[in-house]
Amino acid sequence: MGEKYEQLVNRLADVQNLQHTAAILEWDQQTQMPPGGAEARAAQLATVTRLGHELFVADETAQLLDAAAAETEGADYDSNEASLVRVVRQDYDEQVKLPSALVAKIAQVTALSHEKWAKARENNDFKAFLPALQEVIDLQIQAAEYLGYSDHPYDALLGQYERGMTTAQVKSIFEGHRSQLVDLIAAISKNRDRVSDAVLHQPFDLEKQKEFALYTVKEFGFDFERGRQDVAVHPFCTSFSRDDVRITTRFYPDFLNPALFGMMHEAGHGLYEQGSGAALEGTMLSGGTSLAVHESQSRMWENIVGRSKGFWSWALPQLKTVFPQLEGADLDSFYAAINKVEPSFIRVEADEATYNLHIMLRFEMEVDMIGGKIDLARLPQEWNERFESYLGIVPPNDALGVLQDVHWSLGLVGYFATYALGNLLSVQYYNQALKDHPSIPDEIASGKFDTLLTWLNQNIHQYGRKFTSAELTQRVTGEAIQSNDYIQYLQQKFGAIYGL
Amino acid sequence: MGEKYEQLVNRLADVQNLQHTAAILEWDQQTQMPPGGAEARAAQLATVTRLGHELFVADETAQLLDAAAAETEGADYDSNEASLVRVVRQDYDEQVKLPSALVAKIAQVTALSHEKWAKARENNDFKAFLPALQEVIDLQIQAAEYLGYSDHPYDALLGQYERGMTTAQVKSIFEGHRSQLVDLIAAISKNRDRVSDAVLHQPFDLEKQKEFALYTVKEFGFDFERGRQDVAVHPFCTSFSRDDVRITTRFYPDFLNPALFGMMHEAGHGLYEQGSGAALEGTMLSGGTSLAVHESQSRMWENIVGRSKGFWSWALPQLKTVFPQLEGADLDSFYAAINKVEPSFIRVEADEATYNLHIMLRFEMEVDMIGGKIDLARLPQEWNERFESYLGIVPPNDALGVLQDVHWSLGLVGYFATYALGNLLSVQYYNQALKDHPSIPDEIASGKFDTLLTWLNQNIHQYGRKFTSAELTQRVTGEAIQSNDYIQYLQQKFGAIYGL
Repeated sequence: MGEKYEQLVNRLADVQNLQHTAAILEWDQQTQMPPGGAEARAAQLATVTRLGHELFVADETAQLLDAAAAETEGADYDSNEASLVRVVRQDYDEQVKLPSALVAKIAQVTALSHEKWAKARENNDFKAFLPALQEVIDLQIQAAEYLGYSDHPYDALLGQYERGMTTAQVKSIFEGHRSQLVDLIAAISKNRDRVSDAVLHQPFDLEKQKEFALYTVKEFGFDFERGRQDVAVHPFCTSFSRDDVRITTRFYPDFLNPALFGMMHEAGHGLYEQGSGAALEGTMLSGGTSLAVHESQSRMWENIVGRSKGFWSWALPQLKTVFPQLEGADLDSFYAAINKVEPSFIRVEADEATYNLHIMLRFEMEVDMIGGKIDLARLPQEWNERFESYLGIVPPNDALGVLQDVHWSLGLVGYFATYALGNLLSVQYYNQALKDHPSIPDEIASGKFDTLLTWLNQNIHQYGRKFTSAELTQRVTGEAIQSNDYIQYLQQKFGAIYGL
Repeated sequence: MGEKYEQLVNRLADVQNLQHTAAILEWDQQTQMPPGGAEARAAQLATVTRLGHELFVADETAQLLDAAAAETEGADYDSNEASLVRVVRQDYDEQVKLPSALVAKIAQVTALSHEKWAKARENNDFKAFLPALQEVIDLQIQAAEYLGYSDHPYDALLGQYERGMTTAQVKSIFEGHRSQLVDLIAAISKNRDRVSDAVLHQPFDLEKQKEFALYTVKEFGFDFERGRQDVAVHPFCTSFSRDDVRITTRFYPDFLNPALFGMMHEAGHGLYEQGSGAALEGTMLSGGTSLAVHESQSRMWENIVGRSKGFWSWALPQLKTVFPQLEGADLDSFYAAINKVEPSFIRVEADEATYNLHIMLRFEMEVDMIGGKIDLARLPQEWNERFESYLGIVPPNDALGVLQDVHWSLGLVGYFATYALGNLLSVQYYNQALKDHPSIPDEIASGKFDTLLTWLNQNIHQYGRKFTSAELTQRVTGEAIQSNDYIQYLQQKFGAIYGL
């Protein structure tokens, strides 16, 4: 390593330490902090975020990047050194466009608006959230202008989560499989009586739910020496190191899915973070490369593994010993129950067939919000109208509608699309894993997950942020993101369940 | 407010946000963090601490202090403005002597040595902790040299926790009441059969312990909308705002005291933090003024209130409904049990009569360690020899001896003396409260604590760091710190219990 490269690494370590510190402050706010702490937390987040941003976008970083680029010239594209200089230069070019004061303002405003959202959702009171939301969206529009774009301001926000992806591309991918989803759902709905999920809607002891869900993700390979699990209103995964990865869950006393599949979902994110290459630890190459790739991991463990018949052939007998009320459920009916397709209000509990429609709705609304085409005061009506046209049902209240997601309160605009893209990638990656290791489904059916996890570690996790989502997908699968595999997966799976 | 004063306040707000952020990282490390997170946490703490220190000791702070001093000239000594400039100038003059690199190094080393201490204590393995301890003490000796002193290097470390207090003063205060303590303990020991604490050593359901202990401190006035309680190996209180105060407790399945009196103790600290003046929030005047004053609050609630017969005349009937196994305990015997005097190994569970001897031992050892008069490899032997000479017993292992306290692992050298000073102040302050409100004992006996809490809020808490410990004590009691009141309190209380 050259001298300037080393100086760059040291400088970036401080930046990353501040970013991880901000993540700790946010995790604490969402899982531990007493209500009174909100004001001070907003100020703490603003300071930490602003100082991290200032340190990163200072001229010295650019100079060190130039000098390090010279020192590492000729290094392999895949090498840690060349990758660090390349990826961080892109980060820098993006972040330097944002004034640190704006970054701090966004951190402060969103720390407070998060609390307002949580209360508004609890009280089903959109109006109480509106002023905070207006401020958040205005700041995002400002950020988009600073970041710049060639087509639509939303491109600038989307690119923060999925580097290089444009609004037009997402629209094209979404339009490329929406009608197929709608057709599939329509076909299923004709046979809807074939599946009942009543067995999942019973009283289940909360502690036992937690214990069993923790057991499943430990079996997947989530390492609780290097992570932990907590309760949060809106489940998420965050990490402060590959060795300190935090997942969160919510539990319902009379519905089993949030515990089981929520835990698997967040553990899928967590496995990605824990699998980030040890050599990348402490550098800005550590962690996940994009939100879509991240979501491909969470959805793979939640759905492709966790909602497979093979998995439950192994897990159901164990679940029955924990919950004797499931005694009568046979594998086929339980498998069908956890895969019941039915338009519903809450995205995170939506089935695999309707899920992407929830995303398309949000994506289109966000594009219009950032484009200034929606009066935010009318957001609940907009939501409900579009929801009806997409899913055929109208939320009975805003808590089940426009207030359900945490994202806007945190200023995460441009983020939703990555959930749907993640679904597509999850199947593309899994199909490749199957090609490499056809034994995986049989192993899952006997409670063995290490072949799959090792494959993910080697092909995806270890690279951290070295490659963009597009580069990684090309390397792993030999092709670009596409919806064919996902649609085919859905048609096969639900065709069998619903006799189509 | 003048322009420069306002600039100073804004700059200091960033410094304090970073200090509070470091406190959050430490709280998380001690209560939530998975073991794997230690390395990264050390790096995060080093960055946050170093940046906070750099920001604070920069020339700009000194210039703003000078300019703000000019702007606030003539302001009342007690005013927020004059106090801020005065107190922060003292902070600055102290902190500017320490290189930021040393501050960062201490933060990093202690984050790691804390983990090593926790493991060493668990495994009763002093040798495993020795290299880390050596590094911590070497850094403290360096810090003392940078800070400077006129008499003993220990003065420099002590002054960080108790501004203006010297090693010689502490020695004099300790020597002024040691023989009285020893005499009292000797007299008690002749009547030791009068008191049994067997009733406290029984199986007690952990959840119920927690619930009852939380109930008592809620009744004291600790506000859980502005605070929370967690489990920690070594209980402590920390705060990130007057509205976000965190206390921790440890519970034993077969001993009631740590839950009851540990919770009251930390809540006493917490009440001080929650009572810090609202107008001081977000400034460097917020929080407690010194560790001795802090300890006066925790010891007052734990001992003067929590171990009083009046309190238990109200609380015991309620405790009996939670724990029917206490049915047979009458007030007098229960009161005697919780006040049983007996030389024991663990400081935090020591009775009021022997407690200060535990401190004197540590103080003298620290003075020798910083003075380079102890080979740290011999620390266990040193501890045990001195322990025997002070308390007449020898710890059977190092976990019950030299490894019991968290402080050295965290680099908190110079801190212990404040515990004993806090005991003295607790009685001095309480006696003054009694003069102002003779009804307080009767109120406590009927479960009313607001007269006392309001008195503490008005006379001590609200001032935050405006006045030094010495100034505050003079203002509140009209005299300096002294041991007469404490000795008199002990003699009366234990004279009655032990029939002396």
